[in-house]
Amino acid sequence: MNGITFVLFGATGDLAKRKIFPALYNLYHDQKMPQSISIIGLGRRDMSDSRFQNHVEQSIKTFSRRVVDNRDKMDAFLSAFRYQTLDATNVDDYGKLLDLVQQRESELNIPGNRMFYLSVGPSFFETIALNIKESGLGSTKGWKRLIIEKPFGRDLKSARELNANLSKTFEEDEIYRIDHYLGKSMIQNLGDLQFLNPVIQTLLNNQHIANVQITASETVGVEERAGYYDQSGAIRDMVQNHMLQILMMTAMHMPKKISPKEIRNEKKKVIESVRHIKKEDVILNVVRGQYRSGEIVGQPVVSYRNEPGIEASSQNDTFVAARLWIDNPFWQGVPFYIRTGKRMAEKSTRIVIEFKNAGHKGSVKKVASNLLIIEIGPNEKVTLQLNSRNPRNGKVEPVKIGFSTEQKEVPEAYERLIFDAIRGDSTFFAHWKEVELSWEWVQPILEAFNENLLPLHVYPAGSNGPSAADRLLEEDGFKWWLDDEKSEPFQELVAQ
Amino acid sequence: MNGITFVLFGATGDLAKRKIFPALYNLYHDQKMPQSISIIGLGRRDMSDSRFQNHVEQSIKTFSRRVVDNRDKMDAFLSAFRYQTLDATNVDDYGKLLDLVQQRESELNIPGNRMFYLSVGPSFFETIALNIKESGLGSTKGWKRLIIEKPFGRDLKSARELNANLSKTFEEDEIYRIDHYLGKSMIQNLGDLQFLNPVIQTLLNNQHIANVQITASETVGVEERAGYYDQSGAIRDMVQNHMLQILMMTAMHMPKKISPKEIRNEKKKVIESVRHIKKEDVILNVVRGQYRSGEIVGQPVVSYRNEPGIEASSQNDTFVAARLWIDNPFWQGVPFYIRTGKRMAEKSTRIVIEFKNAGHKGSVKKVASNLLIIEIGPNEKVTLQLNSRNPRNGKVEPVKIGFSTEQKEVPEAYERLIFDAIRGDSTFFAHWKEVELSWEWVQPILEAFNENLLPLHVYPAGSNGPSAADRLLEEDGFKWWLDDEKSEPFQELVAQ
Repeated sequence: MNGITFVLFGATGDLAKRKIFPALYNLYHDQKMPQSISIIGLGRRDMSDSRFQNHVEQSIKTFSRRVVDNRDKMDAFLSAFRYQTLDATNVDDYGKLLDLVQQRESELNIPGNRMFYLSVGPSFFETIALNIKESGLGSTKGWKRLIIEKPFGRDLKSARELNANLSKTFEEDEIYRIDHYLGKSMIQNLGDLQFLNPVIQTLLNNQHIANVQITASETVGVEERAGYYDQSGAIRDMVQNHMLQILMMTAMHMPKKISPKEIRNEKKKVIESVRHIKKEDVILNVVRGQYRSGEIVGQPVVSYRNEPGIEASSQNDTFVAARLWIDNPFWQGVPFYIRTGKRMAEKSTRIVIEFKNAGHKGSVKKVASNLLIIEIGPNEKVTLQLNSRNPRNGKVEPVKIGFSTEQKEVPEAYERLIFDAIRGDSTFFAHWKEVELSWEWVQPILEAFNENLLPLHVYPAGSNGPSAADRLLEEDGFKWWLDDEKSEPFQELVAQ
Repeated sequence: MNGITFVLFGATGDLAKRKIFPALYNLYHDQKMPQSISIIGLGRRDMSDSRFQNHVEQSIKTFSRRVVDNRDKMDAFLSAFRYQTLDATNVDDYGKLLDLVQQRESELNIPGNRMFYLSVGPSFFETIALNIKESGLGSTKGWKRLIIEKPFGRDLKSARELNANLSKTFEEDEIYRIDHYLGKSMIQNLGDLQFLNPVIQTLLNNQHIANVQITASETVGVEERAGYYDQSGAIRDMVQNHMLQILMMTAMHMPKKISPKEIRNEKKKVIESVRHIKKEDVILNVVRGQYRSGEIVGQPVVSYRNEPGIEASSQNDTFVAARLWIDNPFWQGVPFYIRTGKRMAEKSTRIVIEFKNAGHKGSVKKVASNLLIIEIGPNEKVTLQLNSRNPRNGKVEPVKIGFSTEQKEVPEAYERLIFDAIRGDSTFFAHWKEVELSWEWVQPILEAFNENLLPLHVYPAGSNGPSAADRLLEEDGFKWWLDDEKSEPFQELVAQ
């Protein structure tokens, strides 16, 4: 692997500490990084290289999935790190950065491959990109790439502007938009599940599937992000990016030949086919909610409006559920339900695919649907729910068969994604057309929320969200699966 | 439930002791029997009622799946038993039997429902049936039924003669031909697996399935049945009945409405569609084998020809494998392989359904096939083998997901079948058309064996049979699955 320079904006921040440094270390440990690597941390505060290296080491020791036990290896790794103070708006600082980058490239004999990682607030994205260009940092004989974190805009217009501005410095194929859900191994496994298993591939279409349910529920509240969250809501924080990306990964038709370009193309086809909801119809297909006080695992928790940093009159959505239709030949007629919220009964990200019941005539009562359940987090598991007759009593019972992934030693999302970006594999990143089309779909919902065209349903903390989200499915004759495992209904099959 | 008379021919025999008495007891225990029941045991030797009752009690205590712990219940049960000496060829004895039957019917106020169970050698079947008619035992105001054990003939001609003779006394819907494989809960579950699970129903046809493999292997040798077995071979002892019945149950298309008549009809459709093999083509599609000495679980065992009671020059088949084609729209083009043998490496009855691989182009090496594995015995289990990418190392690995049935407290095959016969449900019995069509398919094979038109392959005891049986599948590009779990081959999928 050729050497690279890894320039990290926001190197003293929380994400760097918790995710990026440990990911870099583990990649280095697994020899998934060039041995010649220059890593330059940037931040507003002053810091010496050695103090920065110490900070990096501490963050790895605290957050790495691996126990750090090899002093020599750690020292070799840390020696790659340099630190520079940078005011993102000061073009002179970029000149100094260029000097440092070039000096290290020369010392390490690195061919000018430069990765710029923007782990900073969105207000700096455009300025930094522009200054990379203006300073000459972007002019290199090797490759240059940009890794950028969410949020990518806060509506369709601002996203388009942001992209236009980034495009002045970086080509689309140089931009790696991180959606960390795409780094989760079970999401990456979705394609494999189809591609490697004809029995599953056969079943994944509207001939066999009744509906698809995608849930991403959290038990936490807004935590330290009140300022950002109260301006964004679940619709921007979760739906526009993660939920729609999971939807694309679930509904995409696996190409015969797997390549980043083909996958990108198939994802685009899905989001292009998602039926647009007119602003006045949002009320029919979308449920928004906000948690009130309640109880989670026996502990009382305050209402959203009583969270520190949240306005007492906030109309912000902490819960969104929606019904989507994908108007293509594969999915025509199959509702996709998405649901995400904070302060819910359980922490779980999962996809539940409910199969149609066979058209038995007359003598047979309804039995439980066959389900394919893909748990993405906190545990990774693929489960197929079938029905079987208990030979002891002749009763029909659902049986679940499945496999789970041992979580130990599995690379974290950030490891996978940084590794892919270094290799230049954009398969599991959010591409501009996907982002833009997602914003196009979300835009009327933002407007409907803003104009209060639909009620804000209050739900108790620790619940499965407002009952309006249940009614969304009941309208179509369905229910959210797994909300309450114990009450899972099935009836006896009575042969005549 | 109305009272019945249960007349057991061969009441002092081995099957009665091991299977029939325990089954009757457990049905009685579970209240699956009429409370008014008259059970009359018949045998050649003299025995008092009380001695017979004692014999029944001992057999239950030794062989019942349930611990016998209730003296009153046992006494009540045993009080239903009477014994009479009977020479099957002596018509006078049937007159005495009629007197006893009528006397008990009168005592117990039973409406003349009479079940005749023939647990005797096949040479007595026709005589007994005829004498039941001649003696007037078959003339009753209630129903009369016949339960008959295998073998049902020893070739097509003798089977037709037997059936014609039985038909003089019993109508086809009064004859319950026991094939105890049809009493096994996993065989009975085959229909449910389809009927209750649209995801499985969808997959069970030639669009998705590459081949089907039915194995019934035993580790035992001929045991005490040398005389019978050396005249029958695996082809009569296993293939004509059990293997073809399992094939019918596997390949049958579930009717929309489940009834004995519909199931019978669907099974008949399957066996009617099995492509006939001409005598001169048997060598191309059938492998016969005979075991030589070898080792089973570390113990040396003698060759078939050295078994007590077997001719040193015996050409008898202790192993048969065959390729069958079902020429109907569901199965056209899908080979069904059957295989059965004695002194094999393991005791196992199972169905392995191998799915077609998806038509991936170019960049992908072959991965392991998806399999649906139905284990019928000694354990009951349904397993689906999928492929998954191991997130730790990126390798594609087969994963097995499945469910098994807790064997405890599951009714035995004989319990189910006797219960069904008492209820008049013939679903899980072998009907005449199935038996006749099975013999029609087997007849040219019998002739080819008899005329030595194909080699008798010798295989070591403790093996998976002769390698010729492997070649049968290799010709079509397949292999027997699960013969050696450890060497199960799979390769890495390499995305380009």
